[in-house]
Amino acid sequence: MKVSVGVSNRHVHLNQEDLEVLFGKDYQLNNISNLNQPGQFKTDLVVTIKTEKSEIKNVRVLGPVREYTQVEISKTDAYKLGLNPPIRNSGDLEDSSKITILGPNGSLTKQCCIIANRHIHILPSQVKLYDLDNVGKVNVLIPGEKGGIITNVYLKVASQSFFELHLDTDDANAHLLKSGDIVEIIKEEK
Amino acid sequence: MKVSVGVSNRHVHLNQEDLEVLFGKDYQLNNISNLNQPGQFKTDLVVTIKTEKSEIKNVRVLGPVREYTQVEISKTDAYKLGLNPPIRNSGDLEDSSKITILGPNGSLTKQCCIIANRHIHILPSQVKLYDLDNVGKVNVLIPGEKGGIITNVYLKVASQSFFELHLDTDDANAHLLKSGDIVEIIKEEK
Repeated sequence: MKVSVGVSNRHVHLNQEDLEVLFGKDYQLNNISNLNQPGQFKTDLVVTIKTEKSEIKNVRVLGPVREYTQVEISKTDAYKLGLNPPIRNSGDLEDSSKITILGPNGSLTKQCCIIANRHIHILPSQVKLYDLDNVGKVNVLIPGEKGGIITNVYLKVASQSFFELHLDTDDANAHLLKSGDIVEIIKEEK
Repeated sequence: MKVSVGVSNRHVHLNQEDLEVLFGKDYQLNNISNLNQPGQFKTDLVVTIKTEKSEIKNVRVLGPVREYTQVEISKTDAYKLGLNPPIRNSGDLEDSSKITILGPNGSLTKQCCIIANRHIHILPSQVKLYDLDNVGKVNVLIPGEKGGIITNVYLKVASQSFFELHLDTDDANAHLLKSGDIVEIIKEEK
């Protein structure tokens, strides 16, 4: 059961209200290139993310707007910023870390920073095909000089999905993986 | 078979000749704190490492002086610097990446940049005790939310050793490990 890798660099999702705080009234996101997940896209916008300790500039805003604003970073970024964000599913922001987002039109500070968990986007039909019903999470075998097995890889089942393993830059760089590399899903022993 | 983790941030080893180029004639390294490996220490010196693409400041020089000059970085650093260094044992610098080192007294450019392989410092007596003769490398089981198994972990057997798994910051951060954390050695299947 092979799957291709998509590496997620640090990025920001915005709701419409926060988009307008950062970029101005009635601002609309602009699709400059499609991401592999249907409907998701890269915008021409970047923001600065900031804490009392430090800041990171040029963090990409992804589209479309969501119901929630969320900052996704790596553990390496978290050390730089002096944060300890939880490992989470997108949208699960309870007890996430407080962070400031700076745009050209304004700034906002909210509890919305997480480290995304390792996850695989998958169609319901593929879940059936690969016999992954009621599995929830899998392991993934990574070949190569700095390979291994990563655990706690969550299945994100949605009817609009491109089958892909999403890893943050720490996981990708530690294992010498790039977007488009092929790895193998292993079912967890129960 | 448990072992504690030591995380290695990017650092530089220097030979006496290069130390003098960077810091001045007859310069001697100053031990500001012992590292866990016997005889190895942190110095009060930092250098800048530089390529055509970028640079990283405040890279620590470790002591004592060695027979060879070597820059050890992570894959994350390598992307920033635009390099593609090989994964290597310390001192194995054939086909390593060319890099410039800047000190207060001068600079030098040489082929001496690697990404250190995952390795365990171990005494000959521990190799015997743990039945690891002729094994060469092992796997390591890492617990936790971003855990897994890492492969190609080389045994570095020396009569002056502190038993410790050395990981770079990519491996450590990807697996949410800090120095002093405890992980488990698994013998590779032959």
